[in-house]
Amino acid sequence: MSSLRGHGFVAGTAEIGTGARFAAIDPVSGQELAPEYRAASHDQIDRAATAAGAASATFAATPPALRAQLLRRIAAALRAAEPELVVRIGQETALPAGRVAVENGRTVRQLEMFAALVEAGEWLEARIDRGDPARQPQPKPDVRSMLMAMGPVAVCGASNFPLAYSVAGGDTASALAAGCPVVVKAHPAHPGTSELTGAIVAAAVRELGLPAGTFSLLHGPQPETGARLVQHAAIAAVGFTGSHQGGRALCDLAAARPNPIPVFAEMGSMNPVFVLPGALASRGTVIAEQLAASALLAMGQFCTSPGMVAFVDGPGSEAFAAVLQQKLQGAAAGPAVHPSIRAHYERALAEVRTLPVTSMASSRASTAAAGVCPTLLAASAGVVLQHARLRSEIYGPAVLAVRCRDLAEMMALVHSLQGHLTATVHGEADDFATHAALCAALRPKVGRLVANGVPTGVEVGAAMVHGGPWPAASDARFSAVGTTSIRRWVRPVCWQDWPDALLPAELRDGNPMRLRRIVDGVPVSG
Amino acid sequence: MSSLRGHGFVAGTAEIGTGARFAAIDPVSGQELAPEYRAASHDQIDRAATAAGAASATFAATPPALRAQLLRRIAAALRAAEPELVVRIGQETALPAGRVAVENGRTVRQLEMFAALVEAGEWLEARIDRGDPARQPQPKPDVRSMLMAMGPVAVCGASNFPLAYSVAGGDTASALAAGCPVVVKAHPAHPGTSELTGAIVAAAVRELGLPAGTFSLLHGPQPETGARLVQHAAIAAVGFTGSHQGGRALCDLAAARPNPIPVFAEMGSMNPVFVLPGALASRGTVIAEQLAASALLAMGQFCTSPGMVAFVDGPGSEAFAAVLQQKLQGAAAGPAVHPSIRAHYERALAEVRTLPVTSMASSRASTAAAGVCPTLLAASAGVVLQHARLRSEIYGPAVLAVRCRDLAEMMALVHSLQGHLTATVHGEADDFATHAALCAALRPKVGRLVANGVPTGVEVGAAMVHGGPWPAASDARFSAVGTTSIRRWVRPVCWQDWPDALLPAELRDGNPMRLRRIVDGVPVSG
Repeated sequence: MSSLRGHGFVAGTAEIGTGARFAAIDPVSGQELAPEYRAASHDQIDRAATAAGAASATFAATPPALRAQLLRRIAAALRAAEPELVVRIGQETALPAGRVAVENGRTVRQLEMFAALVEAGEWLEARIDRGDPARQPQPKPDVRSMLMAMGPVAVCGASNFPLAYSVAGGDTASALAAGCPVVVKAHPAHPGTSELTGAIVAAAVRELGLPAGTFSLLHGPQPETGARLVQHAAIAAVGFTGSHQGGRALCDLAAARPNPIPVFAEMGSMNPVFVLPGALASRGTVIAEQLAASALLAMGQFCTSPGMVAFVDGPGSEAFAAVLQQKLQGAAAGPAVHPSIRAHYERALAEVRTLPVTSMASSRASTAAAGVCPTLLAASAGVVLQHARLRSEIYGPAVLAVRCRDLAEMMALVHSLQGHLTATVHGEADDFATHAALCAALRPKVGRLVANGVPTGVEVGAAMVHGGPWPAASDARFSAVGTTSIRRWVRPVCWQDWPDALLPAELRDGNPMRLRRIVDGVPVSG
Repeated sequence: MSSLRGHGFVAGTAEIGTGARFAAIDPVSGQELAPEYRAASHDQIDRAATAAGAASATFAATPPALRAQLLRRIAAALRAAEPELVVRIGQETALPAGRVAVENGRTVRQLEMFAALVEAGEWLEARIDRGDPARQPQPKPDVRSMLMAMGPVAVCGASNFPLAYSVAGGDTASALAAGCPVVVKAHPAHPGTSELTGAIVAAAVRELGLPAGTFSLLHGPQPETGARLVQHAAIAAVGFTGSHQGGRALCDLAAARPNPIPVFAEMGSMNPVFVLPGALASRGTVIAEQLAASALLAMGQFCTSPGMVAFVDGPGSEAFAAVLQQKLQGAAAGPAVHPSIRAHYERALAEVRTLPVTSMASSRASTAAAGVCPTLLAASAGVVLQHARLRSEIYGPAVLAVRCRDLAEMMALVHSLQGHLTATVHGEADDFATHAALCAALRPKVGRLVANGVPTGVEVGAAMVHGGPWPAASDARFSAVGTTSIRRWVRPVCWQDWPDALLPAELRDGNPMRLRRIVDGVPVSG
């Protein structure tokens, strides 16, 4: 791609790293792709973070309309760059053109959603408790509060969504919307895509005359780059999407700072699926087909990929298991986004195969360097209850089918689960009524419960929750997707008896922004 | 007090601890007060936490009206017990009867506020994104979400507010309102008060037939009790009010768990006050009087006590400093709530006196065992900028007066500050306009900005923020006071295409709870 130069962006200015050399890898050939990249040096990391800190107050105080304009400009440029993105993402990740277009559409809509959100303004939760100078024994002060940007956000992008969870993805969009400068640590699996999208964001920041430190993009093939960034005094919060190991490491570093900062790490999960007896009997084979298709999407490289399915032996269970086996064993193997994913996948499968588990790999092998082979694992619930390894994620196109003797064993399985992003229940109407206890037991374990569907395909909207109890996410009180994800980067600030003219416009007496506000605890239209 | 037996409550049942012996200390005489208490044993801590975990699902699923009833019952019993509380709190903390009555009123109102909040239901943020089966290329799912209880909350009460920030204080009230069982680690400075209020909460839980594990109260004079509790697998979140050292220790333990959990620690602050030139010239002496009165409230034992005041040399500065000195040196010394507060206060003063600081203590000494002596400290801004110790809290009745050469030095002082709960600015209308940059620089440092008032007296309401950037609080995104403080203990849960009859009532099609809900991103009345 002729437009690529191996650039990162330090405070908006293109710079080539001065650290270790690396390159993207073609997941099919295993060959390096031009150009070469270099890790950001300590100096570059520090300059990016310091510039973000210096930009912080100015960017936080920008009018919401200007931040909306920034987000829409990035969105428009992403749309215009789609042909170029399709090509480079194809080279770097082997994701097909159709998928890239869908992902870009989602990324664009996400930016536009946040533009509309900050323009509407109600996300700020403007609150006014009116004073009463006559109150006895003490006058009641006038107290007003709203949410405000916390400061620079470090974003560590994911490998599996090179657009939607990467440089201009949900973390960056929500942080910019909130008024927080962003320093992205690009995922080393797609440095070229990161350069392309980073250039788009940097140009939009520059064209709108925003402070240079509003956006930086740092490359680095090793965890040290992100680690130094997260420890930098100017960084106020962290967004991470990726592995449990990576997320935990950043959480630990952030918690050990002289001033700990919040990390929102979305670390994936097994997304268990429960097929209840009625559904198993009446449409088990259809469910098996849907489940296999969901698990095989993008070679299983979705945070919400269903990696475990549990069912009770009985009518329909044999047919269900047979179709699941047929679909996974008959599926084509293919490249993951990077050879390192293959290596992790094979290591995880090897670990699991030391346990009393039946492993059935697809017969349609891949010659790709990053090739991963769809695999059905089968085990009894008793075995799964005994081995915690079987209850944690195998990232890639593997599904663990868990055969339960009875409902009690299925309940025991539910109780043994840690946190997951999602759980899915397939059931007829009767099933849900009969198994209310199972559904109730699942609720504390997950961020999202899905009925009669697939967990993949995270709808972007106001009600979506993409997160969940540890280890699915580092803080279950927040979501990585949807309008509420902006709350990760803001904190309430309160003004008491403050001169009206010096309050933020959102809180002034005349309500010049025409916001719905909470006045004395009651919502009042603008 | 004849009704005291040295009890804690393990899953609602009165138990005497089986660990180390301790007792409350009369802050005046220094003598032990009957009865004796014993620290909860490991077994008692574990049983309390385990029972809380077992109660978690049932309590979370209680109708809001039942939780409101619980809170109101506790409130009514606190009101009825006020005479007894006044006596015991007086003995244990030397806080005067009038102050105890005010604090009890606040504690009662806080419980009633949360009762009203959960009855109204809108705090749940019910959200519905309606589905569209006809959407291409994929049907749009129906997605609904609302906030739900996270599970058992460990509450570590404070010494300075034996009611409002203790056993039945804001952390407990908000957690119970949310549907979270509570395990309180009582502050060892007021075990008798804790027993009295713990008995009230335990009785209310029992009388309403709620699960036994809904409430426990553990005693312990050493940090080990709280530490073990915070590390227990059943505990889902932590509320703490107290010292920086104590809060940091709990944050570190919670972050190092196999599954880290959120801690909201409110760790106090200096609450700097800035007197701008116009106000200094026109009413400096009045401000000095107000400030001294605020700093001396309850012997400076408020989280929001103003511990630093900065002003620029010029018209009014000599008179301001003179009145401040006169008020502090003329103030009566008196007992803190516990001899340990005196020891910490004197150690902090000794540290500060090694620096180029003028120290002017009150001449009216106290013979009380926990006696603390009001002290005015004075230093130039240059010295304060040089010594970080001068920019961190001295808990007790001390005020550091910081003389700035000019506005630039005052700005440098602002920039040198860490996070504080509050900052106060005294100014005439002109002052605020002229010093907009100073006010803007203060904003990122604090949870609450106060104009022309005092930081003490935290109004309980919808708009209040009691928190702030580290080290004032461990997570600036939350508040310890006000209706929003309930958000510390809840997380969003999402249902996708879930059968209507099996959704929580708050999310069902017919809106049986008549809630205002966010439908397709827009608020819709119930």
